[in-house]
Amino acid sequence: MIRRVAIVGAGGYTGVELLRLLCLHPHVELTCLTSLEEVGAPVSRVFPSLPKRIALKLETLDLDRVVAASDIVFTALPHKAAMAVVPPLLAAGKKVIDLSADFRLRDVGVYEQWYQRHTCPELIPEAVYGLPELYRERVRGARLVANPGCYPTSAILALAPLIRHGLIDLETVIIDSKSGATGAGRSVRLGSLFCEVNEGFKAYGVGSHRHTPEIEQVLGDLAGAAVIVSFTPHLLPISRGILSTSYAKLKKAVGGAELSELFQEFYRDEPFVRVCPAGELPNVAMVKGSNYCDLGVVSDPRTGRAIVVSAIDNLVKGASGQAIQNMNIMAGFEEGLGLQVVPLFP
Amino acid sequence: MIRRVAIVGAGGYTGVELLRLLCLHPHVELTCLTSLEEVGAPVSRVFPSLPKRIALKLETLDLDRVVAASDIVFTALPHKAAMAVVPPLLAAGKKVIDLSADFRLRDVGVYEQWYQRHTCPELIPEAVYGLPELYRERVRGARLVANPGCYPTSAILALAPLIRHGLIDLETVIIDSKSGATGAGRSVRLGSLFCEVNEGFKAYGVGSHRHTPEIEQVLGDLAGAAVIVSFTPHLLPISRGILSTSYAKLKKAVGGAELSELFQEFYRDEPFVRVCPAGELPNVAMVKGSNYCDLGVVSDPRTGRAIVVSAIDNLVKGASGQAIQNMNIMAGFEEGLGLQVVPLFP
Amino acid sequence: MIRRVAIVGAGGYTGVELLRLLCLHPHVELTCLTSLEEVGAPVSRVFPSLPKRIALKLETLDLDRVVAASDIVFTALPHKAAMAVVPPLLAAGKKVIDLSADFRLRDVGVYEQWYQRHTCPELIPEAVYGLPELYRERVRGARLVANPGCYPTSAILALAPLIRHGLIDLETVIIDSKSGATGAGRSVRLGSLFCEVNEGFKAYGVGSHRHTPEIEQVLGDLAGAAVIVSFTPHLLPISRGILSTSYAKLKKAVGGAELSELFQEFYRDEPFVRVCPAGELPNVAMVKGSNYCDLGVVSDPRTGRAIVVSAIDNLVKGASGQAIQNMNIMAGFEEGLGLQVVPLFP
Amino acid sequence: MIRRVAIVGAGGYTGVELLRLLCLHPHVELTCLTSLEEVGAPVSRVFPSLPKRIALKLETLDLDRVVAASDIVFTALPHKAAMAVVPPLLAAGKKVIDLSADFRLRDVGVYEQWYQRHTCPELIPEAVYGLPELYRERVRGARLVANPGCYPTSAILALAPLIRHGLIDLETVIIDSKSGATGAGRSVRLGSLFCEVNEGFKAYGVGSHRHTPEIEQVLGDLAGAAVIVSFTPHLLPISRGILSTSYAKLKKAVGGAELSELFQEFYRDEPFVRVCPAGELPNVAMVKGSNYCDLGVVSDPRTGRAIVVSAIDNLVKGASGQAIQNMNIMAGFEEGLGLQVVPLFP
Repeated sequence: MIRRVAIVGAGGYTGVELLRLLCLHPHVELTCLTSLEEVGAPVSRVFPSLPKRIALKLETLDLDRVVAASDIVFTALPHKAAMAVVPPLLAAGKKVIDLSADFRLRDVGVYEQWYQRHTCPELIPEAVYGLPELYRERVRGARLVANPGCYPTSAILALAPLIRHGLIDLETVIIDSKSGATGAGRSVRLGSLFCEVNEGFKAYGVGSHRHTPEIEQVLGDLAGAAVIVSFTPHLLPISRGILSTSYAKLKKAVGGAELSELFQEFYRDEPFVRVCPAGELPNVAMVKGSNYCDLGVVSDPRTGRAIVVSAIDNLVKGASGQAIQNMNIMAGFEEGLGLQVVPLFP
Repeated sequence: MIRRVAIVGAGGYTGVELLRLLCLHPHVELTCLTSLEEVGAPVSRVFPSLPKRIALKLETLDLDRVVAASDIVFTALPHKAAMAVVPPLLAAGKKVIDLSADFRLRDVGVYEQWYQRHTCPELIPEAVYGLPELYRERVRGARLVANPGCYPTSAILALAPLIRHGLIDLETVIIDSKSGATGAGRSVRLGSLFCEVNEGFKAYGVGSHRHTPEIEQVLGDLAGAAVIVSFTPHLLPISRGILSTSYAKLKKAVGGAELSELFQEFYRDEPFVRVCPAGELPNVAMVKGSNYCDLGVVSDPRTGRAIVVSAIDNLVKGASGQAIQNMNIMAGFEEGLGLQVVPLFP
Repeated sequence: MIRRVAIVGAGGYTGVELLRLLCLHPHVELTCLTSLEEVGAPVSRVFPSLPKRIALKLETLDLDRVVAASDIVFTALPHKAAMAVVPPLLAAGKKVIDLSADFRLRDVGVYEQWYQRHTCPELIPEAVYGLPELYRERVRGARLVANPGCYPTSAILALAPLIRHGLIDLETVIIDSKSGATGAGRSVRLGSLFCEVNEGFKAYGVGSHRHTPEIEQVLGDLAGAAVIVSFTPHLLPISRGILSTSYAKLKKAVGGAELSELFQEFYRDEPFVRVCPAGELPNVAMVKGSNYCDLGVVSDPRTGRAIVVSAIDNLVKGASGQAIQNMNIMAGFEEGLGLQVVPLFP
Repeated sequence: MIRRVAIVGAGGYTGVELLRLLCLHPHVELTCLTSLEEVGAPVSRVFPSLPKRIALKLETLDLDRVVAASDIVFTALPHKAAMAVVPPLLAAGKKVIDLSADFRLRDVGVYEQWYQRHTCPELIPEAVYGLPELYRERVRGARLVANPGCYPTSAILALAPLIRHGLIDLETVIIDSKSGATGAGRSVRLGSLFCEVNEGFKAYGVGSHRHTPEIEQVLGDLAGAAVIVSFTPHLLPISRGILSTSYAKLKKAVGGAELSELFQEFYRDEPFVRVCPAGELPNVAMVKGSNYCDLGVVSDPRTGRAIVVSAIDNLVKGASGQAIQNMNIMAGFEEGLGLQVVPLFP
């Protein structure tokens, strides 16, 4: 029952995070790690957190080699690069979990408006958006899972119960999100330097961030109607974590305790969603290193708004952990395998 | 032209910040520093940033001594404690800049609803809300200035141009604010420990923070009508800085460049407000240690909202720096004296 | 083969760290958690990292209850408090791993000189110093293990190979150590506030830190002669991690590659010591959350000194992880159970 | 009495730090800022801390232009680049403060051993090592000042009193230094990324850092004999600050109070050295943004060693602030002009 797993794009932060977690997976054998840089080096030399755990070396991407070595492939590439690699892997019968944005948007036009020309639109219809809390059954049968973006994961899980229950005015949704610096990846840029980020805080991509249409697509599915949101990302001077504060006008007065219960009920059977007791709110520090999404909800009678706060580790539930959760579902494994680590606090 | 200055409550973070800045003020002689704790110790022993700069010791609060020693008094006490001390100082003819919340709200009922019973309501009418950008002329003649709260300073300066020009729907204002840890003061609490704050991020006081009525009072003044806002504070794992992201529905379409110009114009003569060029947004790192408020504004045609981002150093423009700016206006000094330091970046 | 485990003093950082790791231990059932504070509260409310993982509540310390509920007890109390609790637990037949300093020093006189009067000297002879790399066989048979201090663990593992091989002049040993803020525990003190620690760095306890005699005792064992060291701790503005830089004069010239090989050989069979390749040095970020001690050694021909750099997570190999490693050895479990987590980087 | 000042290499962290401080200098007019990158951009756009303070744009380096525009030039270039630029500036009669290493070492052979071939050895004899506390009179008459390295400044000021008084065994000097990340400059490298530095700590350049011969040269001057030291730099996850912990064997027993007094006496008239009261030790947080060097000394009777702890802001006393102090001395200004800012704590 061991599956051979390859990671295409193992040299970045989502790559090393897949490695950290898959080390603990009882049914996975890592067989092939590709990278653009540091080819030939032991991955434990590139990431000195890994000695004694993984003996593999980084390899140049060779699709034949990946196909021969693996049953399941995680593609952890930038968008555009991913859509070049995924089709031959699927054609060779592999199951693919793609961590890029390339197969997340159902509408090619929307994709091309926010990203660039899509070179493989024929695969889009079969790609399943891999948010297990909403699409678990479709993930189970998928060959290709489009692993959700980090911000969308935090925003969608926060708003889904309100929308499903028809409680909010869909024209009033504002999502104010804050992400740790791993969200920008491991590429070497002035704006990612320690001294440029440390003790700072800023907004970016206001009104124009590419995760916006992804959020709107899923919220629209839930609502059965188009949803347009304000989404504002910010850069936190921490390594890991996203906290999203989402606002929406309630259609009618609903108390905080009632909202809290409704969230508890909505996520009752979910292994990786934790709803805070009424009156308490999440903190990114309490999910660090884990696959949990923590949620807290407040009803504000003065303004008639619901405010939902959601916290995830952007590298885990926001990327690699959720990808493993999807793999588990696709492969018929127990959904929490490889994801058993407890949040690292303090 | 030297004024003798006392600080009542010099042992906290706003106290030491007053000291840091007043050291550089050419017309101020510090004469008396009171504190509840570490009485008798040189202030440079309590704050080892200060040796070679200030030779004074901390004293127990003795009103006669303060009255005798000073022309101007900064009261940097918690609310409730402040309203016991301010009246005798005024009665003795001192000018007072009060950094607490006790004299900020014009409506005693509102104060008592959000704080506690007010023991000195008779002084409220003459207290001037010390936001020079809006109330400079009234500050000039004041005996008692109520120095604004840190969050309100950042939110009001962000929204004032939009409201004054009647551009936004007043029922749609949402202010999502994030503050560094000095905002919680120097009192010793579990939640303020390094290991509880570091690498964390959370919301608190959602729908219930005491700075809400202060924001609403001033925005209401600007609008000439009641304004109710959603205000959500968050705790950033940095020492200094507030960044507020404010959202409001535009009544009609206005482009980003036009909004940017309008902000430039609104604050043209203000020494301590810097409006970013269109397309750029502030970062708390760029105001650290200084009295600047940096502002950036975006118009989002997809949602019809204006988004304004404002950044201040919560200890300077959000507290002690603004208090000195008010003192300069009250005393007839050049408004920027003592506030000439350039932001410390990186 | 399940052992029932109690934690006496579960409300601090070493307590929550035991919980984080023991959650993953296949042969442990947590049965009883005591604390001085927040008694009655679910431990997952006190530490919001733990919901969905541990359902226990914190209890007042009741020795009869602890005895009835457990086979093995971790005492995570301050020194002095520990030596009051350990004797009755041993008398009741429990195995005890004590994380305090109370049973680490063999010489009562030395203990009383650096700490205070010892109230239970009769147990000292049988206590085993729980550093498995040096005392594994003695740990195996122990009823009472004195779990090493965090600084001593990092310093002893760094110097042991040099001393065992007689390579250094014992009068020249200097250990310059730097620890993250969790080392100060969770007690509420001004010096532990975020704003007092953040962006700062300082030495403390120079020439007088209580871990000095502990280091000297073990190095003396290794040398077969008295060893006096200079030990200087510093406070790092991070949550977790100790890095120690140790200096000693080499008795004769030995090259860096040779030293590196000698370290590799010395720790060849150790599951939790990783010696860096020659020319590389450890970083606390690469052991975070794990039980590893990473070591790097340099030979400096200009000065004739060896410099050894060692990195641990102070809460894991420096406290709770090592305690679990000791428990595993005492209980006959595989030594790495509960300690399988991979370091969390980034 | 205004001097026109140019900065060659204004785009880095020492460049922006010169700007921050020179803004406040009453006798300086900034006239010309050169940079390799972002030429043509207002410096306030490159460093958004500077709007409202400096209107200049960054220019390509054009020596004729620099010569025409300035009386005094700060060269803030990497070593090697500096020695190409300094000679023509001197030839044109400018006073030059060079922040690189190119003119710090008196012995060309030593320079070439640690750096590279020296292309301008004829200027080395007249260059003055700009540590005012030791060489003030020579600085006064200099045309060319070699501004000291950051680590050497912290180490030399710590050890000078002990060596001048002949108190220590010169063969036992160990300097364990820790620096904030601005020490690595603003160049874009993987190892300087936020996520690679944050929550980490490591040593680097052990036994081989280029500041070693600089330290040894000045300590040798003080001793009147060759001095060989162990010097180990470490990278702190903070933006600013160096703390050095220096160890040396005392030739005879000297108490801590006596050492402390001796330090007080040694630096009695120095405006920028602050010796802590006996029993207290410095913290980098207490010098942040200022030109102070804080010193604390301990005598350890157990080991017969003196331990000196020194703290500076690496960008101020370790670079740009000291450069301005040197300029003031060279130009006959009051030594503290432009350096009056109080440390920013918290």
